[in-house]
Amino acid sequence: MSRSGDIPMNAADASTAESRGRVVIERVSPEIDCGQFAIKRAAGDSVIVAADIFADGHDAISAVLQYWQHSTAGRPEDRREVPMRELGNDRWMAQFPVSQAGRYDYTLQAWIDRFGSWRRDVLKKAGAGEAAPIDLLVGAELIDEASRKAPKSDAARLLKSAKTLREVSLDGDEGSVVERLSGLLNEDLTGLIWKYSERRFATAYEKELAVSVDREKARCSAWYEMFPRSASAEPGRHGTFKDCEARLPYIAEMGFDVLYLPPIHPIGETHRKGPNNNPVAGPGDPGSPWAIGSKQGGHKSIHPELGTIEDFRRLVARSRESGIEIALDLAFQCSPDHPYISEHREWFRRLPDGSIQYAENPPKKYEDIYPFDFECDAWRELWQELESVVRYWIDQGVRIFRVDNPHTKAFGFWQWLISGIKSEYPEVLFLAEAFTRPKVMYRLAKLGFTHSYTYFAWRNTKWELTQYFTELSQTEVSEYLRPHLWPNTPDILTENLQFGGRPVFASRLILAATLGANYGIYGPAYELGESRPLAPGREEYLDAEKYEIRHWDIERLDSLQGLIGRVNRARRENAALQSDRNLRFHAVDNEALIAYSKSTDDLLNVVLVVVNLDPHYTRSGWVVLPLEELGLDPDQPYQVHDLLTDLRYLWHGPRNYVELNPHQIPAHIFRLRHRVRTERDFDYFM
Amino acid sequence: MSRSGDIPMNAADASTAESRGRVVIERVSPEIDCGQFAIKRAAGDSVIVAADIFADGHDAISAVLQYWQHSTAGRPEDRREVPMRELGNDRWMAQFPVSQAGRYDYTLQAWIDRFGSWRRDVLKKAGAGEAAPIDLLVGAELIDEASRKAPKSDAARLLKSAKTLREVSLDGDEGSVVERLSGLLNEDLTGLIWKYSERRFATAYEKELAVSVDREKARCSAWYEMFPRSASAEPGRHGTFKDCEARLPYIAEMGFDVLYLPPIHPIGETHRKGPNNNPVAGPGDPGSPWAIGSKQGGHKSIHPELGTIEDFRRLVARSRESGIEIALDLAFQCSPDHPYISEHREWFRRLPDGSIQYAENPPKKYEDIYPFDFECDAWRELWQELESVVRYWIDQGVRIFRVDNPHTKAFGFWQWLISGIKSEYPEVLFLAEAFTRPKVMYRLAKLGFTHSYTYFAWRNTKWELTQYFTELSQTEVSEYLRPHLWPNTPDILTENLQFGGRPVFASRLILAATLGANYGIYGPAYELGESRPLAPGREEYLDAEKYEIRHWDIERLDSLQGLIGRVNRARRENAALQSDRNLRFHAVDNEALIAYSKSTDDLLNVVLVVVNLDPHYTRSGWVVLPLEELGLDPDQPYQVHDLLTDLRYLWHGPRNYVELNPHQIPAHIFRLRHRVRTERDFDYFM
Repeated sequence: MSRSGDIPMNAADASTAESRGRVVIERVSPEIDCGQFAIKRAAGDSVIVAADIFADGHDAISAVLQYWQHSTAGRPEDRREVPMRELGNDRWMAQFPVSQAGRYDYTLQAWIDRFGSWRRDVLKKAGAGEAAPIDLLVGAELIDEASRKAPKSDAARLLKSAKTLREVSLDGDEGSVVERLSGLLNEDLTGLIWKYSERRFATAYEKELAVSVDREKARCSAWYEMFPRSASAEPGRHGTFKDCEARLPYIAEMGFDVLYLPPIHPIGETHRKGPNNNPVAGPGDPGSPWAIGSKQGGHKSIHPELGTIEDFRRLVARSRESGIEIALDLAFQCSPDHPYISEHREWFRRLPDGSIQYAENPPKKYEDIYPFDFECDAWRELWQELESVVRYWIDQGVRIFRVDNPHTKAFGFWQWLISGIKSEYPEVLFLAEAFTRPKVMYRLAKLGFTHSYTYFAWRNTKWELTQYFTELSQTEVSEYLRPHLWPNTPDILTENLQFGGRPVFASRLILAATLGANYGIYGPAYELGESRPLAPGREEYLDAEKYEIRHWDIERLDSLQGLIGRVNRARRENAALQSDRNLRFHAVDNEALIAYSKSTDDLLNVVLVVVNLDPHYTRSGWVVLPLEELGLDPDQPYQVHDLLTDLRYLWHGPRNYVELNPHQIPAHIFRLRHRVRTERDFDYFM
Repeated sequence: MSRSGDIPMNAADASTAESRGRVVIERVSPEIDCGQFAIKRAAGDSVIVAADIFADGHDAISAVLQYWQHSTAGRPEDRREVPMRELGNDRWMAQFPVSQAGRYDYTLQAWIDRFGSWRRDVLKKAGAGEAAPIDLLVGAELIDEASRKAPKSDAARLLKSAKTLREVSLDGDEGSVVERLSGLLNEDLTGLIWKYSERRFATAYEKELAVSVDREKARCSAWYEMFPRSASAEPGRHGTFKDCEARLPYIAEMGFDVLYLPPIHPIGETHRKGPNNNPVAGPGDPGSPWAIGSKQGGHKSIHPELGTIEDFRRLVARSRESGIEIALDLAFQCSPDHPYISEHREWFRRLPDGSIQYAENPPKKYEDIYPFDFECDAWRELWQELESVVRYWIDQGVRIFRVDNPHTKAFGFWQWLISGIKSEYPEVLFLAEAFTRPKVMYRLAKLGFTHSYTYFAWRNTKWELTQYFTELSQTEVSEYLRPHLWPNTPDILTENLQFGGRPVFASRLILAATLGANYGIYGPAYELGESRPLAPGREEYLDAEKYEIRHWDIERLDSLQGLIGRVNRARRENAALQSDRNLRFHAVDNEALIAYSKSTDDLLNVVLVVVNLDPHYTRSGWVVLPLEELGLDPDQPYQVHDLLTDLRYLWHGPRNYVELNPHQIPAHIFRLRHRVRTERDFDYFM
């Protein structure tokens, strides 16, 4: 460890730069857990880096941000540098772009800028009538020094400047001397000297920090979860991948771009669960797709009733043609009938009687599920086999995985698996389905999961939503955790959805789709407003698809299909909604109304969302906007264009009236239009 | 770097524990800059350590805090362990005592508690009527395992318990089974098993963190700064160390325990400054003691007019007899006449004409001062020579150094110097006199300075004081920076002191002595209320002692001597005032009144301070106290005993009236007395 007392006075060479280096670089941001973890970005984003940089005394400092693609590490010529600028109070900043998926690294370097210090001081002295010929000599020597590192043409220019400097007259009043010197020591010359000056005793920041860059879909996606076995058009027939194909136009029309399928593998028979989690299944009961494995195969096989591997590949290809990607479920656990059980008993925890320990969370028992033992002696073989499952499905064309309960598997396993896969396939995305304690969820995100399920489903009031999304978007968490918002899942039917009716289904969808750039719904249950709970007080579905095949009438007139299509179109057409940055909450004087905006960095696209959280009554209030922050002229009227109803309102000033009837549409998604034409504009038809 | 992808699948042995270790330890506190710097404590303090500790899944976790004296590092038998306990939300805590000056280290270890998990689960199962004989077998095997690591007698006990467990009857209702099992699996047995159970795949926190422990004086001290040359009893005679000796009873009576002397070395003659910083000195002018070095010697010599080295050693000894320690000034810079200039020109920055660069901060020039060049090629010899200066004065009995302008010397130098000295002499204290930018001040504290001058002199309003001292005492800063509060110094006569008169001298002293456990004044200027500035708008003294000898009439009747004595006695007699922890500000409904309390951890000593910041008018208001936090019964009256006036007031409830006339004493220093006798007490005379 490098700490006090460790400056080796006898190690002559190695320590010279360190000991004589006078510049300190500290409090670098972003930096997650002392650089242990990468921050996340999507291709096309930029990374803003800040740090405290200072030295003893009064010397001027130069600092640069250095970055490179990780794959080029070790080739110094591929390092790029961006000069940093001081923001005040010893805080420095610079930014760099990340254009490709993969890993980038960055670090900082800073040193005493001897020429910069001299230039600043000589001008001060000249201003006080104190500049002396010896001062000019000092500067000229520094220029000479730079010239020795410069190529011929630049060197000649530098030497000429040094000569001129030596000969500058210090006669005349302070003003004219300062003017003379400033003219000579102009930005051009200073830049040239900076370029070739020696970085004497430079301080290199001791860490190289990582950026994990994903493809754009990581920044913004709309998921639709659907059970293939329920996708049949005719009631009573087991759905197939072909039925899923037939459903693609419906899903595409609603504007989703990811279709996530629960596990598609053979389902175990031993301890198979019946409808409504009945511990005993009847003869025709299909069981839970998460009880993976039977004599028909395991994690690399397909449940025969869904089709063949060729059918699956065709579905992947057809989806892609509709602009939809297939996401598969990675549920690393086995039914008692999984081939692994007989072939690899060493991968499971065995009891003193030789039997295998089923999953439990006492007193709850899950006898249809055997968890892997990630601590077992054969852990290397187990881990590698599980990785081969991921590779198998990558070979079938899958590039997105939704990971089931990652928080019940070893952290180290995920870190190893994800980084290994991503170093070869940087385009692969992993969504962590961990509904667990906050620190565990944050850790999984740090370990490499692209997206994370959130507590969104249980954040309902204005206060709850504001607190939670401020934490997710305005703190360090935003650097490594990408929230994925789901108003429902096959396991989660919140109380709110049970009792709020269609207005809540509409408002929760709009909240999910606009608070988060990544969101999803479990359908058709969602668009059809399925709200019957297993029992009063339970947040599970009655007749859950997890345990039985359901037939859904997607043509129903009360479907939210149309609204969902409009919301997703608003997302597609407004870059502000495609990122989790720049989310800001705004005041409304009604506790049932929540207002927030999202905007692009250049403020060319600003979207304001107002949602009525009360599913019963019309609510109205005054929204207060920080006009200048949103790029609006406070003295001009502006237009707010509702992307759901296509209505346009003329607003003026920071306070404006809104009124929302939940039985119509419980929200506005306003695009703010900076300038409104008036009769005074000549081309008001344009 | 250890980051994603680095789990080596092929390195068979080394990585096993790491990969299979499932517990995470993160967000450890205190930990300064990723463990780069030590936290500070004084002997007798304790260190409270907290961390986020969690694993995947639902298993129970065990965690321990490990600590050791740095000098015993490498001897595992000297590591001590404290079990940590969970506070909720995956946060764990433990604490350890530091009893001796020197360095301590600490780290954490955590692992899956297999027996603890089993015990918790089997009791839950039993409660649900689900416990099965196989569950008992699993537990018995875990106990067997522990027995194999235990010495004979404990092993026998464990084996017996395992046997009993195997035979426990699971017949009867849930209640009786739970009772039976809980009886067997009691705390005693659980503790024994914990002691011998295998820490399988334990996670060792990756850093060892340091505590720099100082002797008690680092926690609490009262300094008196005095120019020896002005200590003569007769006007016109140059003061000597013998005069300082004569002044000791005066200083001791006021209650100070450190006497800090500005530099005592020979003073340069070239460019010597005259009174009031006159660039030309007259023939009899003594010059600034900070212009160190003449043909009579340098940093290891004594200015002949002050006395001899024997006189100095006698002063050190005599002071110690009065309970006072001598602090010396370390001003690492030279007058043009310093022997180093001719003997070691290589230690200074030379100009193209061969002359040495004097100190400057353009357009200001300090031609009587040559700074060392810490970047020079002979830096090793320079650093070592400066260290030998410190060692020389340690040999003369000095154990406290006040370091002049450390922020204009290389950070690396201080880190090396202080850690080297302290590893040999842990009792040595260094006070950093850096009045500069916040990040530089904080860095110096991190590098090892025991104490730091602060911005206290310029924090005057209630808002300023509250903000600043909340930052110093309630944030991470409190772990490494010990504030040293000075209302004045020979260089600093604040505007407030210039215009506020005696009430401000009194209130600023009380604020310094009670807001900070370490404070000091520059006297006799302070107790005699010296307030004449060099010029209007300047914060420097007229006729500053820095440039001339002053004669002070310490017997003056308007001296603050008596008040200072009472304040220092209150500090001596109240442990609450001897620490910077537990400072809390309290509401008062008058902007001119500030109220705060300090208390010992056990709340046996609680001191409440109320200060009138307005030097002109009597101010009154209602102080609001959080009674329960201060250990007071909200339903009982309590006594507040003013340690300055010895008056006692009976207060009741959280809101009480105070009124302070600045022309009497502008503050209360109340000792809160928890219980007041009433006529209902039998022994009310006791």
